[in-house]
Amino acid sequence: QNYLLAANYIEDARFGRTMDYNIDKESLLNYRRYSRRLLQWGTVIFMWWLLLIGLFEDPAVPGLALPYWATMLMEVFCLVVICLRMYQLSTFVPRRSLLTDPKNIVIALTIVVTVMDMIIYIGMINSPLKGSAIRVSRVVRPLFMINMNESRQVRRAFRNIRNTVPEIINVLILFFFSIALFTLLAFKLFQLRDLYYRGGEPYFRNYWDSFFDLYVLVTTANSPDVMMPAYDDSPWFALFFIAYIVINTYIFMNLFLAVIYNSYRAHLKTEIRSAVLWKRKKLENAFEILKDTMPGEKEAVTYNSWIMVMKNLTYPPSFPKISLFWEVLHNRNADGGIELKQFLQLANLMNVYVVEDQSAVNIFVKWAPEVYASRPSKFVRKCVQHWTFVYLFDLLILMNAVCIAFDWESTEWFFLSIFIVEILLRMYTLGPKEYFSFSRFWNWFDFIIITSAFIATVIEASLDELAQFPREALDFLMVMRCLRLVKIVGNIDRFRIIVMTIVNIAPSLLTYGIVLLMLYYAFAIVGMECFGGKIKFTPNTTASENNCNNTKLEGSEFLRMGYCNNNFNDILHSLVTLVELTVVNQWHNILLSYSLVTSKAARVYFIFFHLIVVILIMNIIVAFVLEAFILEYQLSKTTIETAVEKTIQQLGLNSNDHIADVNHDKTELINEFDVGDNDQYSGKREPHRKETPKIRFRINQGHKNIEVLLQRMFEGELEGEGFEFANAEEPMTLDGVTGNSVTV
Amino acid sequence: QNYLLAANYIEDARFGRTMDYNIDKESLLNYRRYSRRLLQWGTVIFMWWLLLIGLFEDPAVPGLALPYWATMLMEVFCLVVICLRMYQLSTFVPRRSLLTDPKNIVIALTIVVTVMDMIIYIGMINSPLKGSAIRVSRVVRPLFMINMNESRQVRRAFRNIRNTVPEIINVLILFFFSIALFTLLAFKLFQLRDLYYRGGEPYFRNYWDSFFDLYVLVTTANSPDVMMPAYDDSPWFALFFIAYIVINTYIFMNLFLAVIYNSYRAHLKTEIRSAVLWKRKKLENAFEILKDTMPGEKEAVTYNSWIMVMKNLTYPPSFPKISLFWEVLHNRNADGGIELKQFLQLANLMNVYVVEDQSAVNIFVKWAPEVYASRPSKFVRKCVQHWTFVYLFDLLILMNAVCIAFDWESTEWFFLSIFIVEILLRMYTLGPKEYFSFSRFWNWFDFIIITSAFIATVIEASLDELAQFPREALDFLMVMRCLRLVKIVGNIDRFRIIVMTIVNIAPSLLTYGIVLLMLYYAFAIVGMECFGGKIKFTPNTTASENNCNNTKLEGSEFLRMGYCNNNFNDILHSLVTLVELTVVNQWHNILLSYSLVTSKAARVYFIFFHLIVVILIMNIIVAFVLEAFILEYQLSKTTIETAVEKTIQQLGLNSNDHIADVNHDKTELINEFDVGDNDQYSGKREPHRKETPKIRFRINQGHKNIEVLLQRMFEGELEGEGFEFANAEEPMTLDGVTGNSVTV
Repeated sequence: QNYLLAANYIEDARFGRTMDYNIDKESLLNYRRYSRRLLQWGTVIFMWWLLLIGLFEDPAVPGLALPYWATMLMEVFCLVVICLRMYQLSTFVPRRSLLTDPKNIVIALTIVVTVMDMIIYIGMINSPLKGSAIRVSRVVRPLFMINMNESRQVRRAFRNIRNTVPEIINVLILFFFSIALFTLLAFKLFQLRDLYYRGGEPYFRNYWDSFFDLYVLVTTANSPDVMMPAYDDSPWFALFFIAYIVINTYIFMNLFLAVIYNSYRAHLKTEIRSAVLWKRKKLENAFEILKDTMPGEKEAVTYNSWIMVMKNLTYPPSFPKISLFWEVLHNRNADGGIELKQFLQLANLMNVYVVEDQSAVNIFVKWAPEVYASRPSKFVRKCVQHWTFVYLFDLLILMNAVCIAFDWESTEWFFLSIFIVEILLRMYTLGPKEYFSFSRFWNWFDFIIITSAFIATVIEASLDELAQFPREALDFLMVMRCLRLVKIVGNIDRFRIIVMTIVNIAPSLLTYGIVLLMLYYAFAIVGMECFGGKIKFTPNTTASENNCNNTKLEGSEFLRMGYCNNNFNDILHSLVTLVELTVVNQWHNILLSYSLVTSKAARVYFIFFHLIVVILIMNIIVAFVLEAFILEYQLSKTTIETAVEKTIQQLGLNSNDHIADVNHDKTELINEFDVGDNDQYSGKREPHRKETPKIRFRINQGHKNIEVLLQRMFEGELEGEGFEFANAEEPMTLDGVTGNSVTV
Repeated sequence: QNYLLAANYIEDARFGRTMDYNIDKESLLNYRRYSRRLLQWGTVIFMWWLLLIGLFEDPAVPGLALPYWATMLMEVFCLVVICLRMYQLSTFVPRRSLLTDPKNIVIALTIVVTVMDMIIYIGMINSPLKGSAIRVSRVVRPLFMINMNESRQVRRAFRNIRNTVPEIINVLILFFFSIALFTLLAFKLFQLRDLYYRGGEPYFRNYWDSFFDLYVLVTTANSPDVMMPAYDDSPWFALFFIAYIVINTYIFMNLFLAVIYNSYRAHLKTEIRSAVLWKRKKLENAFEILKDTMPGEKEAVTYNSWIMVMKNLTYPPSFPKISLFWEVLHNRNADGGIELKQFLQLANLMNVYVVEDQSAVNIFVKWAPEVYASRPSKFVRKCVQHWTFVYLFDLLILMNAVCIAFDWESTEWFFLSIFIVEILLRMYTLGPKEYFSFSRFWNWFDFIIITSAFIATVIEASLDELAQFPREALDFLMVMRCLRLVKIVGNIDRFRIIVMTIVNIAPSLLTYGIVLLMLYYAFAIVGMECFGGKIKFTPNTTASENNCNNTKLEGSEFLRMGYCNNNFNDILHSLVTLVELTVVNQWHNILLSYSLVTSKAARVYFIFFHLIVVILIMNIIVAFVLEAFILEYQLSKTTIETAVEKTIQQLGLNSNDHIADVNHDKTELINEFDVGDNDQYSGKREPHRKETPKIRFRINQGHKNIEVLLQRMFEGELEGEGFEFANAEEPMTLDGVTGNSVTV
């Protein structure tokens, strides 16, 4: 049982879990069952499904509508799954912390509200009140996504955003004060001048309308329009508006960004610090359980305990890996076990993605060594590795671009086959395993694009004679053809660095993407309830006769621009409309039309959306992107080598008998990062490879990435506070990007 | 002569001058004459005048037009002034460095080009070619502003921007590649679908027009419009546009910001480092000249040399100040002179604004001590210092706001007199000198606003009976009345901090403001030559009959929006139009109309403007503002006290006999920063003040501020490189913000 507990602690540290649980055997086993990946992913899928029900519910996406009992059945099913998970939680978490944990309370409340809402809805829909039945609780669905234990990163992001709010309140108040003051001034200056907008609307004749106009000006959405009547009246009024834009748009908006950046960063740092502390605490707990007193009064984990605890992990590693970890961690000099300092590195070490070196196992070498080593084969491989090969294909891609531009369909087969041959040749040279290795982004990209284009083309060709080919499929084919041109970027070093920077921070941005999506979802539900069906799009109407099925819009800018499709009639249209509002331009026209068809109170919804999503969330995302870009960009240009060296040294792998390998692999690593270029190296490497079977370390780039990125952001600062990042965290995290591999 | 040279070196260090000059006596005197403030400011005024000639030249601002010979006379005059300055320069700068300095070459070339252009223009205007005579050289006028020695900060900013360009080229190419690829895709997808914009223009039917539409979409200026036809055709096309916006608007634009931020910061750091090195080198040179060998083999500056060199400065300080500096710098323990380490601090010390403590000299105490100390007087002073006094006036301001909003003109005299009484009471309590002391931003603000309102109101009242009062003056009065409401911000601590942050970085932003203005000027001149007179605004036309005096615009969005005033007909209108282009919204409609009235080539001008001003310069300004805000905001919240303490200690002022004063003044300092609150303190302070006459240090906040800010930005990083900022630079610069005062 002790080994079980220690194993649990180790896994907690490894996956960053911070839950509190009972330590009797049954609870531990329950906890383990609860933490199984399958169940976790299953729950995540059900949470997404719960959100997706929005597609089928009234107002449903056209063609997907289901009767209300069907969607409710789905919803009940999802709720049951969530309840089961909560029950599972209650089998091992102490009652006290179960009931006081705010996230559990929120989930329980959300379930209760949802169930009550469903009952009321069913009651209403079967009564005369049918028309006014609405499903209020749909808006709280994202709370599951935020509060379940499965989505730790999203919850953390939300918590940070919530903590950031109080600090921007002051700036926000001052900002509104500034707008109010400018509005008063504008109101006083223009009120008596009897000016009109081009459309005939009165100009600054009412305080709150003026306030709204100037608020919109902050977003620049009505930029010269709001100025023109005054400017036409007297050129000097331009000064008023320029002062307004400088102060409110440029200074206050940047102040928002600065304050948000500052405070968000501070909160994030606290979070990361506590995460690191948790990790350490869990590992210390595990060490306390496992330690034995070794000769020389030192406390350490013996080999036997080590094997036992590793065997007790939920997913025990293979024996070579267990030995490898032991080799890395145990104290070689004293012939002892693993001491505390080394033990604290275990979580990071286990997150290093370890595979036996499979690149040596070139399938062609294995199955037809004579052929592969023959002269024509060598010649082909040499050609593929030559730099002219790359340039030749760059040229072909350019020619392909020209052909696409001029619609020379007949060349398509030629280019497609050429590119397939290219992939096959590269695969032959590198070996398929090496070709598809984890960090080779461009190979994957290439393969997927070309293969799907090939399949689609074949299908198209075969169907073409039988029946009409659907237009969407042709569009897809066109997208694939154009995407092929992106290959050229992967062939040019300096562009590849930029693209890899973007690709590397993409997984981290995903967390913020989910945050944004949850907010969109809630706003979309509210929008559908408030504005659903008020504005309808009718295809194939001419501009003049179209009025979005609502006569109140007559003469509005919205109608003139043909925005009828920017409606809240189903969840997909709502999301697109919300994206448009996020982009900001013309948001005031969308707002105005919805306040025309409902009431002026509709402004609250749109202004709220703007404040929360555009000013708060987008600024946080910009701050995050800025920091991540700067970090990655600097890193990709300079510090890779030293970071790798540090890892090697720190893992104790640079003892004398390894030096040759280490040096060799250093060059390889750098080329693993500059993914396309190392064909030359791998060519030379192969004979060497065959002699010594190796094990490779490689970081699992997947789900840990935002954690890795965040830790890296603060490692410099946290180091100063006594965290031994240099020994414990840093090198591991640095390698996260480089797809670092080390041989032993 | 040696003292003269040393004095020159000291002043070079003090003002950050890096010029190379001959060291014979005549040259030194010439150099000194050249560096006189009067001449420098005179030159700056002439340079601005040269730019302002744009107001009077054809196409002139209506009402300001002057005949061409008058403006040319003005121009020649400015050029003569510049030539004289260049001649002055040649009297002390070695011929070699004079002729190889790029900025001198640029100025010489600019003068030659301008003169030639003027001759050609005169020739053409008196010939049959009159119509096509243009003044090409006007566009290079900002070059004087950038390259003259008087505008070091602007030149530095420009140099940094120039150095930043090569590093963003890669991202720029990739960005355009991305747009081109998306355009190809959009073109292929929509070309055959026979779609039209609402206005009837064909939709994605031509590659370059499509490219332009998508480029505009990056700026979000045509955000939903460009999507609507495709979205109406099939909702799935929204995905294409969302992908486009995410990649190009959000990711690439932020990547630009990140790369620019990164590289701009690196260049700035290099500049600051070299500036600090120059300063040190100059001071070392001065020390080399002045040093004597003291007892104990130490090299130091004796008291006599010190007095001599100080007397030789261009603006020798008063004797108490010279003694004060000596006290601060010389080695007290060894009874010796000033050693090198202390001497290197001289430049910073001299930039500390030193005044004899004038706050003790409350004029009322001086002239009527009995009255001031009498009981009613004390009661009044106590009232003014009470917190209710502040709240009472906050309330009055709010009431005033209500009265302004509802146009209760009759209350104006009441409020005006109330606020005048407030100012007088505060002045009485603090003493006028203290009231108007340098760092009391809010007092100054108060005084200026109320006084100008008072004067304007009096003038209005007296003129009202005589004649019609001009409307502009009434507007001015209204502005003053509304600005009065800003006072309330100064009374609330947490808002005051934010406003002071903005006020503190404002002078630094001025440099970037000038950079922007120079670019605007050049673009405005080009714009006037290309587009001047093509689009005219006629006041008082109805929307339907107005066509901006150009039939080519018929049916354009530009006309419908009533943008005729956004033209390039004179320099002021051009500048306003360029500001609108900087704000970005609707810039494509302005562009389209100008390409309608001229040719498609007009797009080049606008896209160039967008790339240079919006993407490059505005991003640099945003980066700078972000960094400065974060710096100031953190500083204003935390580190003031320690910074002040450090200065005090470091200046050697905390010897035992001063401790009482130091402690006393520390509380004062903090209140000096929180400007409004220290009435209580100054009340208590007065008796103490009268006993010991003191000298105050106060930083000159004026023209050095961007330098101070920049040095502070990098001090942490430069410290690590062996610069002794902790001893030499940092405390001084930190005080720049706090209006720090120290008593000795």
